[in-house]
Amino acid sequence: MINITLPDGSVREYEKNSTPMDVAMSISHGLARNVISASFNGKTVETKTPLTTDGNLTLYTFEQPEGKKAFWHSSAHVLAQAIQQLYPGVKLTIGPAIENGFYYDIDFGEHKVSETDFPKIEQRFLELARGKHEFTLREVSKADALAKYKEEGNPFKVELIENLNDGEITFCDHDDFTDLCRGGHIPNTGILKAVKVMSAAGAYWRGDEKNPQLTRIYGISFPKAKMLTEYLELLELAKQRDHRKLGKELELFTFSQKVGQGLPLWLPKGAALRSRLEDFLKKAQKKAGYEMVMTPHIGQKELYVTSGHYEKYGEDSFQPIKTPKMDEEFLLKPMNCPHHCEVYNYKPWSYKELPKRYAEFGTVYRYEQSGELHGMTRVRCFTQDDAHIFCTPDQLDQEFKDVIDLVLYVFGSLGFEDFTAQVSLRDPENPSKYIGSDENWNKAENAIINAAKEKGLNYVIETGEAAFYGPKLDFMVKDALGRSWQLGTIQVDYNLPERFDLTYKGSDNAEHRPVMIHRAPFGSMERFIAVLLEHTGGNFPLWLMPEQVIILPISEKYQKYAEKVSGLLENSEIRTLIDDRSEKTGRKIRDAEVSKVPYMIIVGEKEEGEESVSVRKHGEGDLGTFSINDFIKHISDEVAKTLVTFNK
Amino acid sequence: MINITLPDGSVREYEKNSTPMDVAMSISHGLARNVISASFNGKTVETKTPLTTDGNLTLYTFEQPEGKKAFWHSSAHVLAQAIQQLYPGVKLTIGPAIENGFYYDIDFGEHKVSETDFPKIEQRFLELARGKHEFTLREVSKADALAKYKEEGNPFKVELIENLNDGEITFCDHDDFTDLCRGGHIPNTGILKAVKVMSAAGAYWRGDEKNPQLTRIYGISFPKAKMLTEYLELLELAKQRDHRKLGKELELFTFSQKVGQGLPLWLPKGAALRSRLEDFLKKAQKKAGYEMVMTPHIGQKELYVTSGHYEKYGEDSFQPIKTPKMDEEFLLKPMNCPHHCEVYNYKPWSYKELPKRYAEFGTVYRYEQSGELHGMTRVRCFTQDDAHIFCTPDQLDQEFKDVIDLVLYVFGSLGFEDFTAQVSLRDPENPSKYIGSDENWNKAENAIINAAKEKGLNYVIETGEAAFYGPKLDFMVKDALGRSWQLGTIQVDYNLPERFDLTYKGSDNAEHRPVMIHRAPFGSMERFIAVLLEHTGGNFPLWLMPEQVIILPISEKYQKYAEKVSGLLENSEIRTLIDDRSEKTGRKIRDAEVSKVPYMIIVGEKEEGEESVSVRKHGEGDLGTFSINDFIKHISDEVAKTLVTFNK
Repeated sequence: MINITLPDGSVREYEKNSTPMDVAMSISHGLARNVISASFNGKTVETKTPLTTDGNLTLYTFEQPEGKKAFWHSSAHVLAQAIQQLYPGVKLTIGPAIENGFYYDIDFGEHKVSETDFPKIEQRFLELARGKHEFTLREVSKADALAKYKEEGNPFKVELIENLNDGEITFCDHDDFTDLCRGGHIPNTGILKAVKVMSAAGAYWRGDEKNPQLTRIYGISFPKAKMLTEYLELLELAKQRDHRKLGKELELFTFSQKVGQGLPLWLPKGAALRSRLEDFLKKAQKKAGYEMVMTPHIGQKELYVTSGHYEKYGEDSFQPIKTPKMDEEFLLKPMNCPHHCEVYNYKPWSYKELPKRYAEFGTVYRYEQSGELHGMTRVRCFTQDDAHIFCTPDQLDQEFKDVIDLVLYVFGSLGFEDFTAQVSLRDPENPSKYIGSDENWNKAENAIINAAKEKGLNYVIETGEAAFYGPKLDFMVKDALGRSWQLGTIQVDYNLPERFDLTYKGSDNAEHRPVMIHRAPFGSMERFIAVLLEHTGGNFPLWLMPEQVIILPISEKYQKYAEKVSGLLENSEIRTLIDDRSEKTGRKIRDAEVSKVPYMIIVGEKEEGEESVSVRKHGEGDLGTFSINDFIKHISDEVAKTLVTFNK
Repeated sequence: MINITLPDGSVREYEKNSTPMDVAMSISHGLARNVISASFNGKTVETKTPLTTDGNLTLYTFEQPEGKKAFWHSSAHVLAQAIQQLYPGVKLTIGPAIENGFYYDIDFGEHKVSETDFPKIEQRFLELARGKHEFTLREVSKADALAKYKEEGNPFKVELIENLNDGEITFCDHDDFTDLCRGGHIPNTGILKAVKVMSAAGAYWRGDEKNPQLTRIYGISFPKAKMLTEYLELLELAKQRDHRKLGKELELFTFSQKVGQGLPLWLPKGAALRSRLEDFLKKAQKKAGYEMVMTPHIGQKELYVTSGHYEKYGEDSFQPIKTPKMDEEFLLKPMNCPHHCEVYNYKPWSYKELPKRYAEFGTVYRYEQSGELHGMTRVRCFTQDDAHIFCTPDQLDQEFKDVIDLVLYVFGSLGFEDFTAQVSLRDPENPSKYIGSDENWNKAENAIINAAKEKGLNYVIETGEAAFYGPKLDFMVKDALGRSWQLGTIQVDYNLPERFDLTYKGSDNAEHRPVMIHRAPFGSMERFIAVLLEHTGGNFPLWLMPEQVIILPISEKYQKYAEKVSGLLENSEIRTLIDDRSEKTGRKIRDAEVSKVPYMIIVGEKEEGEESVSVRKHGEGDLGTFSINDFIKHISDEVAKTLVTFNK
């Protein structure tokens, strides 16, 4: 008999050689139906792997990332089998599971794969899957493994096997198909109910452009047909909401090849949007006792040697800026913190004057390979809504909680309601990765965990995910399409105060070190606005919209009245636009819908006569006729409803 | 007889060999008393130089820069004479007039000059001057000139003479003193009524540190003792108002050796001050139809090669930023214009959509030698209140005039009332210095001159002072100490539109080039705030003050009432501070005076009882008791009075 410990801590006794599936069966038939993968003592196993010792067992369904991985890994086997049957002579290489689905890199020889191939591949995949074939792992000798692929004339698998040793080579069989494989499969192919071949793209063998080019076939599969439909709908929605597409349509930002890749140019509407977001945060920060500072975008190289950032970013990022006589070196700042430390250092402080909370919309620079750039979410310079709090150790807990309040206020005002927190601690087994003393790390980690608990956050602890200079709390926000984004971060830092020799005079009249908190509720303005675009599809909360009202005069005759209404709205700080083109009203309404302006006002003879406006709301339609004042109140009320005030 | 044309265009007939002094005499005895220098046909002459041909004569008094130059140049002779008498054996080198006074570089041998030497030098100077010695120029042969200085053992003068040719060597004699000199003297030493030796500093011969070190004696002299006293008082006032000193006292900005020289760190109060100035301009710009954009602080090197800035700044400024694989090069931006051209280029434009006016508080970078850095007036990165207007050629005149209106509004709101304009045109004799066609230069120069005329500006034309890419109009503003500062600049540019291939579709449906206007009313935020500090001594207009009101509770008992008053003022957006130290009220008042907070409120039992405040105004004293509401109105009225609204 063996003792199996389950994730809830319960221990059950089973006969030796029981499988994870046996364990699932013993718990419930429902679970057994859904379990598709397992891990035993931290190692992935098959559901039919016999368990021979005591240990910890976790069972996974498709709902869990580990379950999805087994599902998609197994799907790659079936995909390869289908392709091998349809295109005899192809050479298989590798086919892993990825974040969404799986791919297989294949040498198709002369055949050029196109979208027309996809339906028959999908069809064959499903035919094969319906056979409910089990996956069976078996160990083979290196000689036998090599022999198989040499016979098949597959140099890629031969190369892979040559890098392995006897005892670590396994084949996986299902149906008539065999592949070199390390394991981690679902019980049988019968649960692969839906599949979609997503795309085919060129890929070099082992990612090296000197190697032969292969075709990478991307696919995704699900245990239910409905799940695939939903996934494809979501993809289509995400495509429509792609911030790069919306940013262009709404004229928010652009990139210029001449200025350089990854260096955003904010167009007027985007710059205004960003300013509104900045003003919104500035206002809340002022209430919370922050002070704005402004620091240069460069600093002497020595500054970042002092801070430790040079060691971290120096070689992989933008290189030092030299001077004509080559006697000085500057760096684009990778972080704002060293500058804020020097602001703190401009005069001596007493404990009575702390905390000091310095805030800045500070731009930082990171060199990214051009292939890694992506719209506004991965750029080469981005502006953090940065602030650094310098406080006494006694003040740390309260300050950390106050920052959490501020972040929650920001999320609330912008319609992000579904989020979790991730507390990133250091990896205690890898101390060389971090700077600073054990004692300081412990203090900082406890402060974060306590604050997260007290504020009732839904949080997980991730060991080993801390920044090199301190532990942190990140907010993972779910957008309207269910995708997770890391926004908002709060970090405790005992190290920079040491490195910059920051001090304050305590009540004991002696010099002490302040503690530092780094925080950025938005994270980066560029990335935040990109996420907000994809979350809202460009239908921002009313207070944030570039244009709030568009006035459509039904003919030139009412242009003057339109201007009068516009003037009155602008006086009430309502951002207003007039569509004075000589187009039909129907066309103007359709165009206004596309431009996402929340309110349309139609004015003609009736409206001019009674000093009123006919109002349509974007996506909702006709709201009827309002007096101008009532309409202004309607807008103000809606703004007040979504833009609550931060109460400190 | 010869015909002499005077600056007013009148022509008078004189006998041949008449001198400029004779001409002055013939005009008025008053003029003759004051004339100290002259120019004939554009060349400096002595007042006693015989005029032998027809020509244009200008007479100068001390009021004119040319008069001052002759006065101070002559003073350098007398200084050298005095020093030679007091310290026999010194070796003279060169002694020019400078912007304020003059200097002489002298090899003092073993003697170490200190401030204790100054009074006896000044005394001897005045004794010598009282002799009313005339200055007489005489031509000498190279051989004779060399002989004199070889005999004296003065290798410096020998070196100077060796670089001259026979026929271009003149000596100037006065009293018993002779110096190598090109001329431009006052009639006689008798008008040198006041002198001050300002300082002594080390200076290398010919500025080369490999050469012997000399002592540079700085002096200044005046035709009236009172003028010297006034000058010294002004210097003392300027010292008290030095923006570096005030910036520190008022905690506006700081510099950090670690961050780097010339890279300002804006402290909270300074950052807030700068933001208020920026917001003030943003508001006026919005009314004037500008749109804010935001662009990165770097750009690809190629961007500046395209714009021509790389050619201009490339070698002498911050060097290119390389990437890890050395395959890309970026530059810190020396100018914002290339970025704004690329913003313009993000989509095609119709003439109906122009002008586009893109504004940005854009930071630019220029490498300055550390010796050239000076507080906030000469830094390595500064933020321009930049904007670029892209318009049709037809719109240029009106746009230029509108920009002048905006600049005048800015100056008016900030208390700069005394200013002139300088129109900088190209040097037609040096066309290779400029980029762009003659035709475009002519168009641009005419637009500027017309606008200056029509707006009634007091302007001068400076030929050869244009930027390399276009003509410009600069505003020269006089501060409260009578010093001139170049603020506010407007430039027309036909070149960048060419270089960036900017176009719009005209009413003829063909592609046309827009014209570009560069403009910056403040110039640079750093420099402007420095000038404003020196102009106002830190007593900014009320709307701009970092803190507007300081509340002084007469004891701890009234702290709560102080907080109540503070809350009410802050609700009315009045920036308020409480001095809650346990100091005597007299001390608090004195400290508040030093900190320049415009209004002090004293609160105690009486004020709390009747819900009032006792008010003192900075520099004025007691204003009596106000109800809280009346005081708020008093402040609001004063703000409204100084901060007028821009009417576009």
